[in-house]
Amino acid sequence: MVLRLSTLFLRTLREDPVDAEIASHKLMVRAGYIRRAAPGIYSWLPLGLRVLAKVETIIREEMAAIGSQEVHFPALLPREPYEATNRWTEYGDGIFRLKDRKDNDYLLAPTHEEMFTLLVKDLYSSYKDLPVSLFQIQTKYRDEARPRAGLMRGREFIMKDSYSFDIDDADLALSYEAHRAAYFRIFERLGLEVVAVKATAGAMGGSKSEEFLHPTPVGEDTYVRSAGGYAANVEAVTTAVPAELDFSDFAAAEVHDTPDTPTIETLVAAANASQPREGTPWTAADTLKNVVLAVDLPAVGEKKAERRLLVIGVPGDRGVDLKRIEANLAGHLGFGGEVEVEPATEADLKQNPLLVKGYIGPGLSLAAPVLGSEGSSKLLYLVDPRVVSGTRWITGANQAGKHVFGLVAGRDFGWDGVIEAVEIRPGDAAPDGSGPLELARGVEMGHVFQLGRRYAEIFDLKVLDQNGKQVVVTMGSYGVGVTRAVAAIAEGNNDDRGLIWPKAVAPADVHVVAVGRDQEVFDAAEKLAADLESAGLEVILDDRQKVSPGVKFGDAELVGVPIILAVGRGLAEGLVELKNRRTGEPANIPVDAAVAQVLALRETLV
Amino acid sequence: MVLRLSTLFLRTLREDPVDAEIASHKLMVRAGYIRRAAPGIYSWLPLGLRVLAKVETIIREEMAAIGSQEVHFPALLPREPYEATNRWTEYGDGIFRLKDRKDNDYLLAPTHEEMFTLLVKDLYSSYKDLPVSLFQIQTKYRDEARPRAGLMRGREFIMKDSYSFDIDDADLALSYEAHRAAYFRIFERLGLEVVAVKATAGAMGGSKSEEFLHPTPVGEDTYVRSAGGYAANVEAVTTAVPAELDFSDFAAAEVHDTPDTPTIETLVAAANASQPREGTPWTAADTLKNVVLAVDLPAVGEKKAERRLLVIGVPGDRGVDLKRIEANLAGHLGFGGEVEVEPATEADLKQNPLLVKGYIGPGLSLAAPVLGSEGSSKLLYLVDPRVVSGTRWITGANQAGKHVFGLVAGRDFGWDGVIEAVEIRPGDAAPDGSGPLELARGVEMGHVFQLGRRYAEIFDLKVLDQNGKQVVVTMGSYGVGVTRAVAAIAEGNNDDRGLIWPKAVAPADVHVVAVGRDQEVFDAAEKLAADLESAGLEVILDDRQKVSPGVKFGDAELVGVPIILAVGRGLAEGLVELKNRRTGEPANIPVDAAVAQVLALRETLV
Repeated sequence: MVLRLSTLFLRTLREDPVDAEIASHKLMVRAGYIRRAAPGIYSWLPLGLRVLAKVETIIREEMAAIGSQEVHFPALLPREPYEATNRWTEYGDGIFRLKDRKDNDYLLAPTHEEMFTLLVKDLYSSYKDLPVSLFQIQTKYRDEARPRAGLMRGREFIMKDSYSFDIDDADLALSYEAHRAAYFRIFERLGLEVVAVKATAGAMGGSKSEEFLHPTPVGEDTYVRSAGGYAANVEAVTTAVPAELDFSDFAAAEVHDTPDTPTIETLVAAANASQPREGTPWTAADTLKNVVLAVDLPAVGEKKAERRLLVIGVPGDRGVDLKRIEANLAGHLGFGGEVEVEPATEADLKQNPLLVKGYIGPGLSLAAPVLGSEGSSKLLYLVDPRVVSGTRWITGANQAGKHVFGLVAGRDFGWDGVIEAVEIRPGDAAPDGSGPLELARGVEMGHVFQLGRRYAEIFDLKVLDQNGKQVVVTMGSYGVGVTRAVAAIAEGNNDDRGLIWPKAVAPADVHVVAVGRDQEVFDAAEKLAADLESAGLEVILDDRQKVSPGVKFGDAELVGVPIILAVGRGLAEGLVELKNRRTGEPANIPVDAAVAQVLALRETLV
Repeated sequence: MVLRLSTLFLRTLREDPVDAEIASHKLMVRAGYIRRAAPGIYSWLPLGLRVLAKVETIIREEMAAIGSQEVHFPALLPREPYEATNRWTEYGDGIFRLKDRKDNDYLLAPTHEEMFTLLVKDLYSSYKDLPVSLFQIQTKYRDEARPRAGLMRGREFIMKDSYSFDIDDADLALSYEAHRAAYFRIFERLGLEVVAVKATAGAMGGSKSEEFLHPTPVGEDTYVRSAGGYAANVEAVTTAVPAELDFSDFAAAEVHDTPDTPTIETLVAAANASQPREGTPWTAADTLKNVVLAVDLPAVGEKKAERRLLVIGVPGDRGVDLKRIEANLAGHLGFGGEVEVEPATEADLKQNPLLVKGYIGPGLSLAAPVLGSEGSSKLLYLVDPRVVSGTRWITGANQAGKHVFGLVAGRDFGWDGVIEAVEIRPGDAAPDGSGPLELARGVEMGHVFQLGRRYAEIFDLKVLDQNGKQVVVTMGSYGVGVTRAVAAIAEGNNDDRGLIWPKAVAPADVHVVAVGRDQEVFDAAEKLAADLESAGLEVILDDRQKVSPGVKFGDAELVGVPIILAVGRGLAEGLVELKNRRTGEPANIPVDAAVAQVLALRETLV
């Protein structure tokens, strides 16, 4: 059916919406694809819905191609399954909770691991039933603190989520690879460049995990890549660990007065003034900075809520990156959920009088540690991977105005664990030796994740194996942001006149514009539209009377269908104008050749 | 893609689910179409999703055919628009409400009149933009007190809702007729018999309204129909009103002692004993029963919540029907929402000492009324339509043990209004003279509704008319229960062995069963499945190894694909078995003719 602009439910806007900051958001609203209903919550208008449907179809086809089967879960779900996995609590303010008329607790599901696990447990019981992969394309809810960028980060949004169920790790690896390959095909068909970056497991538990990031300057995620092919999100980058040093010949550590040196800068200056090093002066990299952090752990099960302090030791030339710490800390705390970390407050520090602000250190000898769970402070002490055995540091002596010099890691002090805690800098070495890292920004389009047995264990999802023994199933979890994909495509395909959709997802193939007032023009445009449709194309026809050519062309460029065909004055000479929306190149072509040339042009388009 | 039972995510159940009462619910769970996630909330498994998608496609096609354009609104919506129409309050416990992290109020939308009105206001401004019709197929939420019957009455369910916007009543009538016709086509294609019955406007305001009821003994709605074609739901039936009588010659009313006659039965007996009527004895139909009811009105805007009493006068041989009263009362109360009515309690009666239980009456003369807003009780007094001017009644004299005889309506007493209040009985006359009514049960599959200008006025949805004047737009609202339609189809198409889907919505066209252990059988079944698919059919193939023929046939009959093709022992003689699932008729046919015969059989099926 030809979409006629005389009746299509569409009004384009000349002005950007006031709440829009990025091009995709501005243009999708201006071109009549979406409308805001509430913060982070959008309505879809006819053109938007057509694009969305095409994106969904591509995803469905590629999921079917790897044998994944479509199901559909409710969005409104009871508390109990999410209570069982602690996610009811761990999501904090991040989910929408509600009660029904009988005062039972419900949530609007942010993701469906629990329900899929229970469903497979409900239906399956034997190794012969596995592997199975299930997916849904479904509306999800997250109560984002800062919904922004239109569809990029919404509170009601559509995801394709899928889950694989396998008998063992080897099969899980195959399911994971199949999904990974399907995702590359999906994003290729959507015209979205993606980089698969190593990711941390986060609140889900599990092991191997990669994010599919679409590189874009408006992305919220920072990731690193090396020329040699290493890629990881910032949370997941690992440090190239230096070799341990033999410290048998190293001199004993010495405590020196360093008055008024509460910062790294003042410490380095004082060290060079009072204890100069032969050859090279001291730099911040020679100091060990011990940062005190606080974590508020929620009540989980029988554990009460608590605020816990910990200390992280990092080279003094590096800032700590709280997001990296948060991504890597949960295991050290014996906590399954997402944690939020903040610098300890003055009040926190006062609670632990051993901590002398500006002069905190691990202690002067292994026999008398201050930091660490075995130390006098009892505070968990984690260090940056660069703090390997044999490295020597200037660090606090736990007395105001005093630091210790030449304190040797592994000889004079120990630690509870190693954590990726410092900011990544361009030029840092990739951990796999593939060269220096560069930083880039991207938006997460998908995620593949070897979830492992966490959920299956909680819900007792077991099957009988070949030997008649009950074994716990191992799972993968995989997501694609469907509405976000629409936004990312729009963000990457526009110019100052409007959107430029890739043909695979465009709301139509060709936009026929009848220019002027002559009935012959309108008749010819009608006939062309019908012929184009007969040739298998989806057609928008601007058949509006008494609308100026400027407005019509402006709307066509704003709406962004990849091919524009204008019927106007040239018709008298048998000519119409064919335009590639992306290049803007116009060509006068014979009206009789128009259908063939539109088809030919379409072949050349992405 | 052939659906193989060796891998399809399906397990059939031998036992009915314990919470299921009706066939569609039992069978859709047992045959692996749906699973319960919470009361009134279901997950869709692969086969169910295929049926659902086909139902949605039929609805989409018929909506497109009347020029309705598809959009999609969020389910999670802010309070404000629903506050503006009072529905935030009026829905009472019937909707899900929640708060976001900033403590703003949201709801899960039960229907979207507000949002569509605002959207059209956002985009349109001229009579030239109208008419427009918009629809969505969307997940809706209602916190039903008694979710039941599987998908028939859920709390999360899918509806097609649409809205028309017109410049005047004449155009609204056209939009309404177009929807009405589309609905008949939709239900015909779905194989669902429907009756369009007159309905009341309910909480929506508006005027003309019809429900599409599917007659079924498991339906929750009672409706009436006459042989002459009248049809209405019970709430909307109107009474055939008798002619008024000339009362100029009627004797004056007389009060008589009627001790111990608090009920109609005792009153009739006493009347016949002490005041016998010449010719025919008194019956209950000669008495006027005055029933005191109570309504709890919620706080709306500046009006406080209140419990209000009212009295309804009906012939004593009729019981009152609270649902009919509720459907027709709102206008009399000056209240826009849904009201719940209950019999007044003893405590209510005590608050109004003029009401003498068992002896309540309108008062003995027009000059001294007791009931009615002008009466001494100040209580709203409504009467049944049979109480026309000149009718004579035995009724309470507002003193214990006394009734008045020969009280003439219009001469001795008046009323505030007329209301449809009494139970409908089989044999009552249709109001259009089309004969006696019979009662039937049905389930509401759709609703068409001339909403009028209520929402447009609240949201100031106006357009410029041909004369440059601002006029308020008039709206229609139209719904189809999509998930309920799936249930209704299943309810009407099954036998003791399982489901029997009409071909338009069946999850597949043909179910090929490989019977036995011979590799030749499996090979032949595979080839047949492939050939059937090449012929354009959707195929389920039971390629399970080591599953008995009994289980395979049982599953095929339970799943309910309309054609079953069994490949087994007969293959040695070149024969396969073709079976019409509905009739159960088997036929041995040559394997080479199988595809042609399946196609031919399919042509004959509904």
